[in-house]
Amino acid sequence: MAKQGTTTVETREQRIERDTITTPPAAAPAAPVRVPAAPVTAAPALDPGALRDLLLGEWRDVRLAARSRMLDPVFHLQDDERVADQRARVTRTLHALLETGAPRLPFPPEFGGTGDAGGNLAAFSEIVTADPSLQIKAGVQWGLFTAAILHLGTHPHHERFLDDAIELRVLGGFAMTETGHGSDVASIATSATYDPATEEFVIHTPFRAAWKDYIGNAAVDAHAAVVFAQLETLGERHGVHAFYVPIRDEAGEFLPGVGGEDDGPKGGLNGVDNGRLHFTEVRIPRTNLLNRYGDVAPDGTYSSPIASPGRRFFTMLGTLVQGRVSLALATNTGAQVALQIAVPYADQRRQFPGASQEETVLLDYPEHQRRLMPGIAHSYAASFALNELLHDFHRVFTGEHDTDAARQDLETFAAAMKADVTRFGLDLIQECREATGGAGFLAENRFGRLHSDLDVYTTFEGDNTVLLQLVGKRLLTDYGRQFKGAPPAAVASIVGKQIAGKVAGAAGVTALAQRVADSGSSAKASRALRDRAVQEQLLTDRVDVTVAELAARLRPAGKATPEAAADLLGRNQHELIETARAYARLRQWQAFDRAVEGLPAGAMRRALTQLRDVFALDAIEQDLDWFLVRGRIGRQRARAVPATLDALLAALRPQAVALVAGFGYEQGHLRAAIATGAEQQRQDEARAATRTA
Amino acid sequence: MAKQGTTTVETREQRIERDTITTPPAAAPAAPVRVPAAPVTAAPALDPGALRDLLLGEWRDVRLAARSRMLDPVFHLQDDERVADQRARVTRTLHALLETGAPRLPFPPEFGGTGDAGGNLAAFSEIVTADPSLQIKAGVQWGLFTAAILHLGTHPHHERFLDDAIELRVLGGFAMTETGHGSDVASIATSATYDPATEEFVIHTPFRAAWKDYIGNAAVDAHAAVVFAQLETLGERHGVHAFYVPIRDEAGEFLPGVGGEDDGPKGGLNGVDNGRLHFTEVRIPRTNLLNRYGDVAPDGTYSSPIASPGRRFFTMLGTLVQGRVSLALATNTGAQVALQIAVPYADQRRQFPGASQEETVLLDYPEHQRRLMPGIAHSYAASFALNELLHDFHRVFTGEHDTDAARQDLETFAAAMKADVTRFGLDLIQECREATGGAGFLAENRFGRLHSDLDVYTTFEGDNTVLLQLVGKRLLTDYGRQFKGAPPAAVASIVGKQIAGKVAGAAGVTALAQRVADSGSSAKASRALRDRAVQEQLLTDRVDVTVAELAARLRPAGKATPEAAADLLGRNQHELIETARAYARLRQWQAFDRAVEGLPAGAMRRALTQLRDVFALDAIEQDLDWFLVRGRIGRQRARAVPATLDALLAALRPQAVALVAGFGYEQGHLRAAIATGAEQQRQDEARAATRTA
Repeated sequence: MAKQGTTTVETREQRIERDTITTPPAAAPAAPVRVPAAPVTAAPALDPGALRDLLLGEWRDVRLAARSRMLDPVFHLQDDERVADQRARVTRTLHALLETGAPRLPFPPEFGGTGDAGGNLAAFSEIVTADPSLQIKAGVQWGLFTAAILHLGTHPHHERFLDDAIELRVLGGFAMTETGHGSDVASIATSATYDPATEEFVIHTPFRAAWKDYIGNAAVDAHAAVVFAQLETLGERHGVHAFYVPIRDEAGEFLPGVGGEDDGPKGGLNGVDNGRLHFTEVRIPRTNLLNRYGDVAPDGTYSSPIASPGRRFFTMLGTLVQGRVSLALATNTGAQVALQIAVPYADQRRQFPGASQEETVLLDYPEHQRRLMPGIAHSYAASFALNELLHDFHRVFTGEHDTDAARQDLETFAAAMKADVTRFGLDLIQECREATGGAGFLAENRFGRLHSDLDVYTTFEGDNTVLLQLVGKRLLTDYGRQFKGAPPAAVASIVGKQIAGKVAGAAGVTALAQRVADSGSSAKASRALRDRAVQEQLLTDRVDVTVAELAARLRPAGKATPEAAADLLGRNQHELIETARAYARLRQWQAFDRAVEGLPAGAMRRALTQLRDVFALDAIEQDLDWFLVRGRIGRQRARAVPATLDALLAALRPQAVALVAGFGYEQGHLRAAIATGAEQQRQDEARAATRTA
Repeated sequence: MAKQGTTTVETREQRIERDTITTPPAAAPAAPVRVPAAPVTAAPALDPGALRDLLLGEWRDVRLAARSRMLDPVFHLQDDERVADQRARVTRTLHALLETGAPRLPFPPEFGGTGDAGGNLAAFSEIVTADPSLQIKAGVQWGLFTAAILHLGTHPHHERFLDDAIELRVLGGFAMTETGHGSDVASIATSATYDPATEEFVIHTPFRAAWKDYIGNAAVDAHAAVVFAQLETLGERHGVHAFYVPIRDEAGEFLPGVGGEDDGPKGGLNGVDNGRLHFTEVRIPRTNLLNRYGDVAPDGTYSSPIASPGRRFFTMLGTLVQGRVSLALATNTGAQVALQIAVPYADQRRQFPGASQEETVLLDYPEHQRRLMPGIAHSYAASFALNELLHDFHRVFTGEHDTDAARQDLETFAAAMKADVTRFGLDLIQECREATGGAGFLAENRFGRLHSDLDVYTTFEGDNTVLLQLVGKRLLTDYGRQFKGAPPAAVASIVGKQIAGKVAGAAGVTALAQRVADSGSSAKASRALRDRAVQEQLLTDRVDVTVAELAARLRPAGKATPEAAADLLGRNQHELIETARAYARLRQWQAFDRAVEGLPAGAMRRALTQLRDVFALDAIEQDLDWFLVRGRIGRQRARAVPATLDALLAALRPQAVALVAGFGYEQGHLRAAIATGAEQQRQDEARAATRTA
């Protein structure tokens, strides 16, 4: 029964009780955990501009330019629109975006582009501050539909289709997912059967489960689609291929044989018109097969530059990696916007009188620090790791370093980051919403819409659970590879030592780590936990040891029946997924550490070192049971983990506002009533009035 | 770059790799954890009707009647409405709800009621299946505004205001929260100063932070409000009191001196018109003070039946407890609706070919069991605990057992349940949304709207973080009380034994628990973990030991300066909050256990015993580091916790659909496309077509 905002039954009596807790008259034996306070860095020393530049990395200028474009209100989402109006607005805005010229940049020079793959992808994610629907609508049009023509088609396709697609004369869908198959693209059922008599492909939907579904642009705007279908010619199937298929006429009516329906309102992103498509023996010219990786000659002969059907499929879908990178970037952007709204508010808002009878600032409550500040660390870590991911992406996609191994590494890294950042970002936005109370629920403060719009990022472009399994399997495969050709006894010895934690890095690290494991005081354990070498060893162990354990447990699968092998894998599925998550965190810690180690001595380095420590301690605390069970952290020393984290948060607390200012968004990006300093004004007014009275 | 729905780069090669993982050629030394499989209960034996009746408890009939009323489409929320339309529809629906007669039932017989406090509160929460906005709008009108007149007013107020409020001739706001003070009601700044010359109170808002905010009905519909303000008479302040204040005229315009603004669109619940109100020397008759707990005579003399101002305040706000109970009930209802949509879909949906080359049903993946099935256990546990809470609520509010101690227990229990259920419910709805992929993001499948509408339940009617601190402090106070008058040496001994885990229940339990701690095989540990006495001991220890530790650590606060005491409390705030969460889980486990123990032997008892075990194992797993650090669970034995949970989930998996069918909602409540069996039909069609081909 209710109104928004929070009410309470805490009485003044209870409040007094809160500060003077009734406790037993004698001390209990458990010694309190004493950890040395982390040094408090001086508050005014941090320069948000320098932090921003560090976070933006090598594509700073193109990113800032993109950010700046998004200050134009024409791009900003509106509250309280019906779905049809929201869609129409975003479609108009798409044209406004084209007018800035930015969407042309990722394409070849003859289409107005620069070939700056990394920079353009980074810039693209900035759209999310204006309107996630616009980001996704643009992604559908240029990142999927047009990019598929570019990457899966050949010169004639570029000549015929690319300019219209880039210039929005033809809006298109990327018709891959079917109602019956999302994550498992290889099992889609739409068929493309070649008819040599007319030199046409016949696109056909055999049953309801094979309808294309959730396809952006399909409900209203798309006049064509890149349709993925099982290619069949001369009675033989050659796997999934992509076809350029016109679907609507000038009047916007479906062409003969094409049908579909609107996916209707969604939990968010309602500026994108998602819909379903189906095809009843729709004929397209042979030359509409996007034939870079597989072609059919007029007589029906199939040919491909890639012999293995599996590798061919993998190559064709490889271009999807850019979607994953961009979703991770965009979610981190959304999380940073949320933090840049919530943290300054928490630094102004007061609630409940403290010891001095003045009301306490929310962010001075240790619990509030726990709710918001590890998110700052996580977001910094994600930024640094995403910069490395962008760097790898750029080198692969510009051809600077485009090997099979580099592509596989890129895909594993992208999968891990996409799954981890979309998860933490969504949870963090929700935490910001709740930490700002009733105000956080108002549309004027952005959180609800950010959450609902970014929600689907957890399951599209690769369901997070599926992606983490891919990462986990890659870790297992890499692990197995290192033993190729080694004699079994040597392998057993290595593995045994790894699992028992006997393989350490430098001797000094082992000694330090030992202090965490079981000896020394809480203070020593706490100091060790703030040592970067110890952090790296613990976080690396968390991945490597579990991978070794899993590999040993899964070994019998190789000789088992398929059923027994599947059962064995299933029983270890949860741990495999958790290990992939730990791997994502390790990559982020390493990137954070590299960024910190590259800084000159000074206030910024000190603060970011503490923030890296927060990231590490938070990750270790989350998996504390793992470290305890494996003896990496001893029972008594384990208490130093939360205590050290608390001390770090208290030490960094004066820097919290500067750290989020370092994200560098302006009021025109934040557009939140509580981010304007209004709360401080209200309190100053209230205090002045109280003093006068 | 994207569309909704999931895409993938998993190739057939990768898929094969998934089933035949590359592993090292030699076994690693870590022994796999082997736990005995839990007995699989026969799938057809569970009767959803019997489960439903058990879950509905003592107010089964009134709850079923309320549920049945909510099948009428007039009450159902609509997608894609603008805020003004949604508000107008919900206001109309409120009148339709009154026509059913149900809103009159909680009131005294002379106003058409039955006095069935527990039954009516339970029935009220069923509205959430139709439209959470309607539930909250009804809650504002009858549960807050009208209930305040009833509980805080006296006979003349009932005569003057109650009938109009109940019959919706006057819609009203419950104007307690201010922009500057939500959780800390005692600090609100709106004043009500008595003027003996005119026998009027002057209601006044001194500054912007004192505007009433987030007030339901205030933006449009309210013609009056119960306004909470600091009562001042004859130059003396007497604390927060409630006043009946007319705010709008017949034409809907603010009365002189009253102003306000619309809170605008929100993250959800947009059927409720929340707004802000302020008062500039608004005069109301002396008799508009709701004077049950404090009155002002015509000459300005203040009097109250409750001498202590703190206790008076506490008593006045005590009626808010019904809001907390109802929010917990409603969120659990929302969570059950989500599960009854997501689980049957997971039982039909297939993705990726399994060992037999037939595609695997999602719920057969152990990770999918982990994502959805602990939620089933949590929701059952919440239902049983909420039934006990309702029982206590009924006895207090009907006067059957209305003592100070009973009220305090009720408030602690309600605070714990409200905080825990609104948290788990929201997270569970999100998990259901993500576990159903792209389909889960469509409005036609309900999850997004359920999440956004129930989101604010975590912070209104008592912010969860504030409530958990109240619970934690109550635990500390109760703990301290048991030592009153005991000699210090005896206390030290008792506390020491408690913390060291030497105080156990029956000797048999200790022996069993010891198997979990450090001796015996994994199999023995697993059996012990499925023993209800061991579960109770572990979950009780989790609360009691931490409370004893915290009490010892906080003991110096009694003699410290206020600053030092606040600092000490702050450093233990996080642990106190976590302990309160553990207390909420303990209460739920106990209620679940009582429900199971009350069942006759048979399939239902077997299945629910396993489900109770899932709840316990999930709770223990979440706090596994705590149990390890305190030596309650040994390092080697800790591995039996996740393994036992996995085994239980696998054993219960065939019952998952029956268990959620036990929530008893009909298609007219679920109203989700994926809850209709459409997925099964699509797959049957696809398989038939594939066989034919």
